[in-house]
Amino acid sequence: MSGRGGDARRPAVDKAADFANYFCTYAFLYHQKDMLSDRVRMTAYHDAVFKNRAHFLGKTVLDVGTGSGILAIWAAQAGARRVYAVEATDMATHATALAKANGVDHIVTVLQASAEEIDLPEKVDVLISEWMGYFLVRESMLDSVIHARDKWLKPGGAMFPSHARMWVAPVQSALWDARQGELRHSLSDWAAFVRDTAGEYGVDMGALTDAYRREQNKYFVQTGCWESLYPSQVVGRPVMIREMDCHTVTVQDVETVQADFRTAVFDGTQQVNALAGWFDVSFKGSKSDPAAVEVQLTTAPSVDEGTHWGQQVFLLSPALPTPAGSSVAGSICIERSQRNHRLMDVRLSVKAEGGEGAQGEERSGEFFIE
Amino acid sequence: MSGRGGDARRPAVDKAADFANYFCTYAFLYHQKDMLSDRVRMTAYHDAVFKNRAHFLGKTVLDVGTGSGILAIWAAQAGARRVYAVEATDMATHATALAKANGVDHIVTVLQASAEEIDLPEKVDVLISEWMGYFLVRESMLDSVIHARDKWLKPGGAMFPSHARMWVAPVQSALWDARQGELRHSLSDWAAFVRDTAGEYGVDMGALTDAYRREQNKYFVQTGCWESLYPSQVVGRPVMIREMDCHTVTVQDVETVQADFRTAVFDGTQQVNALAGWFDVSFKGSKSDPAAVEVQLTTAPSVDEGTHWGQQVFLLSPALPTPAGSSVAGSICIERSQRNHRLMDVRLSVKAEGGEGAQGEERSGEFFIE
Ligand SMILES: Nc1ncnc2c1ncn2[C@@H]1O[C@H](CSCC[C@H](N)C(=O)O)[C@@H](O)[C@H]1O
Ligand SMILES: Nc1ncnc2c1ncn2[C@@H]1O[C@H](CSCC[C@H](N)C(=O)O)[C@@H](O)[C@H]1O
Repeated sequence: MSGRGGDARRPAVDKAADFANYFCTYAFLYHQKDMLSDRVRMTAYHDAVFKNRAHFLGKTVLDVGTGSGILAIWAAQAGARRVYAVEATDMATHATALAKANGVDHIVTVLQASAEEIDLPEKVDVLISEWMGYFLVRESMLDSVIHARDKWLKPGGAMFPSHARMWVAPVQSALWDARQGELRHSLSDWAAFVRDTAGEYGVDMGALTDAYRREQNKYFVQTGCWESLYPSQVVGRPVMIREMDCHTVTVQDVETVQADFRTAVFDGTQQVNALAGWFDVSFKGSKSDPAAVEVQLTTAPSVDEGTHWGQQVFLLSPALPTPAGSSVAGSICIERSQRNHRLMDVRLSVKAEGGEGAQGEERSGEFFIE
Repeated sequence: MSGRGGDARRPAVDKAADFANYFCTYAFLYHQKDMLSDRVRMTAYHDAVFKNRAHFLGKTVLDVGTGSGILAIWAAQAGARRVYAVEATDMATHATALAKANGVDHIVTVLQASAEEIDLPEKVDVLISEWMGYFLVRESMLDSVIHARDKWLKPGGAMFPSHARMWVAPVQSALWDARQGELRHSLSDWAAFVRDTAGEYGVDMGALTDAYRREQNKYFVQTGCWESLYPSQVVGRPVMIREMDCHTVTVQDVETVQADFRTAVFDGTQQVNALAGWFDVSFKGSKSDPAAVEVQLTTAPSVDEGTHWGQQVFLLSPALPTPAGSSVAGSICIERSQRNHRLMDVRLSVKAEGGEGAQGEERSGEFFIE
């Protein structure tokens, strides 16, 4: 892993493990199709390109992580002079075939490589990419986009999307009961297992009960849940915890996302059983060349504009009572997992403040975005 | 990956990827518990040890892949003088705690390491291990056992288990309809997706239809299914395709398992929709020191002696007609996948022979044990 340069604190990434853990799923058309079937996502990128044709007409474009090739093909259809479409997985072969079948293979050049490794004959006017993971940062793919931007985007060039924001809000998750029930079930199952193993096989497994409880709690309660929340499940005003300009954001900026927040809980909310996190991105063009039409892609709770990203939900256990007039105040810190830099460790603490009656309660814990 | 020696044809295994792909699951107590809850498996190993106490009394034992430590603890309880319990994952910590809680920590020495890397102060009288994967060979863990045997087992020492056999049989799988239905559903879904994407987003995905069909066929039909078959679903006499003596088997012997087979189909069987594979192992001690009681562990179809291994089922599509009086003849070749040496590629061809009426039909194809 030599020659990667950069931050010495970051452990070198084992490439084969990264393929095993991460890239492998993207090599399936089935998975690409899931993304291509996300109407909200597709419409946003489609609008971003075709309502801003001036940004593409006669321009050079780099698509980081082209997958099936969709964004590169759109850029070509919108009039780009040349599009470099980079894809690490074998999906590159399909992107090549698709560009050809759609008559833009004279414009789109597909390169099967890591974005970090490419060598282009020229710098580009536009960098387009769909790099967002759960709660924005999962997958750490923005690193690759930043790397490519710093190397290949012309000064003053435009990033698509141009901005990203992260949000949190207190919610009532519908998964809370199920997860707690599964945990309880799993622990009573373990108790029976310990009895049986002692009785039938003469080995006392009781010494592992605490470890099992920790493992199962981690799995059922501390692992961020994918949920597609209804707006009515959001029980406090959403708070923006991070905003980034894709033209200037650095890897260091996203390696750790730390924020304190405070938000009023809506009237009539007796308790908050989870904190939810989501993101939005927008396509505003560059400072020197703003978009004709600003397009936004939000993954906020929605009745019929839901996305495949859903929201990431962190369950509070037990639920946090929020007496009338409470605010929820807290802090969140999202960092990369040591085991796998594409997954996240989340430290969260929240308390109810200023409500009627006694001192508000507090919850804090560790969560994992898997 | 230098210093591994051995077969130059074998690609070096990336250790980090091997942990990501393989070892990671074994680090969960949840997964160990699954194995520890397999009554047939547990009873077989328990009997093998306690009905052959003479093999353990005062002896030195190596447990390759001790997991929770169960086999090592049994060996100690049966009177072993010293047990070396090797485990690659963090499960080693739990094995250490369990040995202590069960009062055998003065006998069991847990080593967190790959079996390939250990350095023991002495050679051992007995090597015990539960290394069997689906259809015996999945996981390729026998390699590690062989490696440890050649290095650490005394001449004349005993392997537990001592023998392993692989079986195939023509069957009527209950999964055939479901898998074919899911494939059909997936392909019609794709057709709708192609229409929508052309209509709404101006990109024709039709060029990928063949690739998608291949991908989905691989997933739904060519991937070996885990199934717990009833004996009544076995529609022809099972054939043993490979027998190995664990004292002498080599890595080369198991890298490729190739066999031709021929078996009579039971009367009244109109068609065969799958071939199933399973295994058994037995505990016969060593040649010089045979077991007092021979124990067998079989994963054959069974009404109430099923195991977590189930059977691996390879679906024939379309099903193979077997006119009255037919035999099924064929060949099977199981090799390690290039992508991941712990998974298997299977080439299978079968035909119906000697039945009444016309020339029997033939099916051949590639399968994957994932
Ligand atoms: N560093 C990197 N270099 C090249 N490709 C990468 C990459 N990191 C992620 N990718 C690829 O980026 C894609 C992200 S998914 C988005 C696919 C496509 N642009 C679309 O919008 O539908 C995946 O196919 C993944 O394999
Ligand atoms: N080469 C190797 N070195 C050390 N441990 C290994 C290994 N290959 C596999 N293992 C471990 O072997 C175990 C196999 S599962 C069997 C666990 C235990 N012996 C039981 O019978 O319940 C897993 O815990 C796995 O992590």
